[in-house]
Amino acid sequence: MKTQYFTATSLDGYIADENNSLDWLMQFGDGPEENSYSAFINEVGAIAMGSTTYEWVLDNDTFKDPDAPKPWPYEQPCWIFTTRDLRRVEGADIRFVKGDVVAVHKEMAAVAAGKNIWLAGGGELVGQFYDHGLLDELILSIAPVTLGAGAPLLPRQIVKPSLKLISCKPLGDLFLEVRYSL
Amino acid sequence: MKTQYFTATSLDGYIADENNSLDWLMQFGDGPEENSYSAFINEVGAIAMGSTTYEWVLDNDTFKDPDAPKPWPYEQPCWIFTTRDLRRVEGADIRFVKGDVVAVHKEMAAVAAGKNIWLAGGGELVGQFYDHGLLDELILSIAPVTLGAGAPLLPRQIVKPSLKLISCKPLGDLFLEVRYSL
Repeated sequence: MKTQYFTATSLDGYIADENNSLDWLMQFGDGPEENSYSAFINEVGAIAMGSTTYEWVLDNDTFKDPDAPKPWPYEQPCWIFTTRDLRRVEGADIRFVKGDVVAVHKEMAAVAAGKNIWLAGGGELVGQFYDHGLLDELILSIAPVTLGAGAPLLPRQIVKPSLKLISCKPLGDLFLEVRYSL
Repeated sequence: MKTQYFTATSLDGYIADENNSLDWLMQFGDGPEENSYSAFINEVGAIAMGSTTYEWVLDNDTFKDPDAPKPWPYEQPCWIFTTRDLRRVEGADIRFVKGDVVAVHKEMAAVAAGKNIWLAGGGELVGQFYDHGLLDELILSIAPVTLGAGAPLLPRQIVKPSLKLISCKPLGDLFLEVRYSL
């Protein structure tokens, strides 16, 4: 069981632009990074995300067309970290939690039953898992763009010991997938 | 002749930390990225850098030991963009300029005589060349660290058209070299 931060990022380390938009990513459509995602998600048994990430999925996928809501995209149980009262999605295994990532991680690991835990973002939430030694891998799809500003990939200093490079491979002719372990 | 931004960067897109330090990079010594540099610098005919980058080289290399100054590390003519009066290095071909990157680029290209132009940084200076359509390639040595804050790699939004991925290869077992064209 590994706890993995799998995300797309700009070359300069932003996961959303200053307007919390992913248009810079969506311009590539369901590009080659989808292949990487399919292999990844099959091994995931539990998902954690922050409220901004959750609301992005609702606004841009589930409830994008309010008259024809789409099913929640994940089969795995999802823990949503929030202090606010957020919309729910019928039929989805979504569990609202706040605060202590250590206790939640323990619960997620039990439910995942040997499969991996996906930290879907944002960067600050992933940073809290990192702070408690609960982050094992980064799996990044690097888009061929720079944003100059936006939501940071991982607002932490991880210098010594450094990350360990696992692999780097092109995804199609534009994206790179890089993997690091901690 | 290409105008290239060759630099080391953290995984999250910073070329120096918040204290303008490269300790996060220097911990790896003259690592495998040196090999990449040797091949690169042989094809360079002119170098541009900002005043912060210039002073970093003076403080951390040339005049690190004030009693035993080292020779300026570059044989190629260097254009230093600055509005201040900066220290000079005896015997080095250093040309202080300000402002208009277009005129300076023209001069550099003439001197480079077919060889490449290296934009050594910082990010804002490289951004000014980009703003005028004068940036051809990014060649980045990605260090296996995150900094969370610091001097940005390239404070610009380059989204549409996106960068074009040229190549990605490991440098040793820790660094990645990625190349993009504009």
